[in-house]
Amino acid sequence: MNAIVYADKPVFRDDHPDPKPGRGEALVEVKLAGICATDLEITRGYMDFHGVLGHEFVGTVLTGSHEWRAKRVVAEINCVCGTCSMCHSGLANHCQRRTVIGISGRDGCFAERLVVPESNLYEVPDAVSDEEAVFVEPLAAAFQVIQQCPIEPRMRVSVIGSGRLGLLVAQVLQTTGCKLDVIGRNRHTLTFCEKKRIQSVHLDELVVRADRDVVVECSGASAGLELAARLVRPRGTLVLKSTYAKPEKVNLTPIVINEISILGSRCGPFPEAISALARKQIDVQSMITKQIPLRRGLEGLELAAQPEHLKVLLKPSA
Amino acid sequence: MNAIVYADKPVFRDDHPDPKPGRGEALVEVKLAGICATDLEITRGYMDFHGVLGHEFVGTVLTGSHEWRAKRVVAEINCVCGTCSMCHSGLANHCQRRTVIGISGRDGCFAERLVVPESNLYEVPDAVSDEEAVFVEPLAAAFQVIQQCPIEPRMRVSVIGSGRLGLLVAQVLQTTGCKLDVIGRNRHTLTFCEKKRIQSVHLDELVVRADRDVVVECSGASAGLELAARLVRPRGTLVLKSTYAKPEKVNLTPIVINEISILGSRCGPFPEAISALARKQIDVQSMITKQIPLRRGLEGLELAAQPEHLKVLLKPSA
Repeated sequence: MNAIVYADKPVFRDDHPDPKPGRGEALVEVKLAGICATDLEITRGYMDFHGVLGHEFVGTVLTGSHEWRAKRVVAEINCVCGTCSMCHSGLANHCQRRTVIGISGRDGCFAERLVVPESNLYEVPDAVSDEEAVFVEPLAAAFQVIQQCPIEPRMRVSVIGSGRLGLLVAQVLQTTGCKLDVIGRNRHTLTFCEKKRIQSVHLDELVVRADRDVVVECSGASAGLELAARLVRPRGTLVLKSTYAKPEKVNLTPIVINEISILGSRCGPFPEAISALARKQIDVQSMITKQIPLRRGLEGLELAAQPEHLKVLLKPSA
Repeated sequence: MNAIVYADKPVFRDDHPDPKPGRGEALVEVKLAGICATDLEITRGYMDFHGVLGHEFVGTVLTGSHEWRAKRVVAEINCVCGTCSMCHSGLANHCQRRTVIGISGRDGCFAERLVVPESNLYEVPDAVSDEEAVFVEPLAAAFQVIQQCPIEPRMRVSVIGSGRLGLLVAQVLQTTGCKLDVIGRNRHTLTFCEKKRIQSVHLDELVVRADRDVVVECSGASAGLELAARLVRPRGTLVLKSTYAKPEKVNLTPIVINEISILGSRCGPFPEAISALARKQIDVQSMITKQIPLRRGLEGLELAAQPEHLKVLLKPSA
């Protein structure tokens, strides 16, 4: 089958072996897959991953147990053991023996087909299109912010970074009614905020004051983290959403002096994301800047690295 | 008067001008002063401070309002305005216009006398000796850990660093009955833990497993922070007590992946510290490795930089 495979560099293969589902697993035909910053980080060495890239997708179950067959599905990316101490303590996403689709120990979705544990599947309701469903995974990660850090309308909240993750997080925060702004350096993506009636501030026009109750770092740059630490008020909260391939130089002293809480935040709840899309609460459709065939996936990775491209989708059937 | 003054390097002066108390301030004769890691960081450029060093002391009020005169006192180091938004919101320690004794905008206690706002003073009860009282400020900072992060007996907690701060934090944590160990690289200071029946682990013998509910970083080294991030369990808490003069290279990815909370932690509650010393709950006396006259203060700073010296005290009257 066709697939984008990463070893020491990403390559397109038309002869990648078809995956074979194990016990409790479904074989899923990929309809659409999304390229995310983590995929790009992996091509820079993050997680030391080798295999088929990609973890954001919507697809159709080809083979699996009766209840799932022919269903249109999305899937949580953490594939867990169910028996370790983390799984037993209700933190299955942190399973000690987990594999992660397209990120760690398990092939991903930049392929015609992939194999997924059935327990990871969520059916996509008719109200959610394929183009929307492919955003469920990153949108769930955005919802994780408000699960870990409850936001009240009186709070002043900033999102740093107007890329694909930042704009999803901003839209989720907008649903809370808080005093929100998005800080970015890309005027093109900041206009997206204006269309959504989310206040946006270009980095060049930012007045740095430590008066935000919560700052969510979505830029993936150490400069973004430094800025976040300068914007959050004493005893405020800094939510860290980005992962980094390499150690970054960070001045942690403001964190100690201002007694800031930093919350690392990763994957999130699929039901909230699916429900928000079904109710048209979050606009993901207008974040799609390119849809290209899977066989042009390498070009897709290059496009996704350009800041003006919010979401690049790969289509295996095209 | 005699004083240790920092400009671009620390110097001893016998002609430093006597401080003049302003409105609401007391003039305090210093009986004993303690050297802390922050003082050493300042001599490396931290906070860009110029003036008399030192913020840990016990002294006697020479002049001030009637109720304070001749009282034996210690003092909170943050001198606050009482009117800014931080002061009004109950976070006076984070006052936007604060000066900090011997750290920022205000002369410190490595001197015969210093000036302190009376509202910062705490009377030292008879049950607490001078040698104990000089530890109130750092011990309060240690108590801040359990105020910010409530510890239950079932919790597994590690302290990284067996220096002066680490051993105070460890003793405070010991009062909670949690499953505690101290991780350090100095066998000399680790023996202090054994005497206090606190489990200690030398860095060379440490088996790194991410199974601690809480890790308190007291080493002041980026390697300590990296280790802390590897020891804390997913969704656990990392308390950051150390300040650093320079930005450090830190790998933040485990913080995001394991959804760790980092709590910056600085100054703490004086009443808890005074009470714990009066009840002999915390042993600070045996942490004193040297007492020398103030006029040999530069030597004191050098000694305090050596890891085998836990607490070096300066005595102005000697």
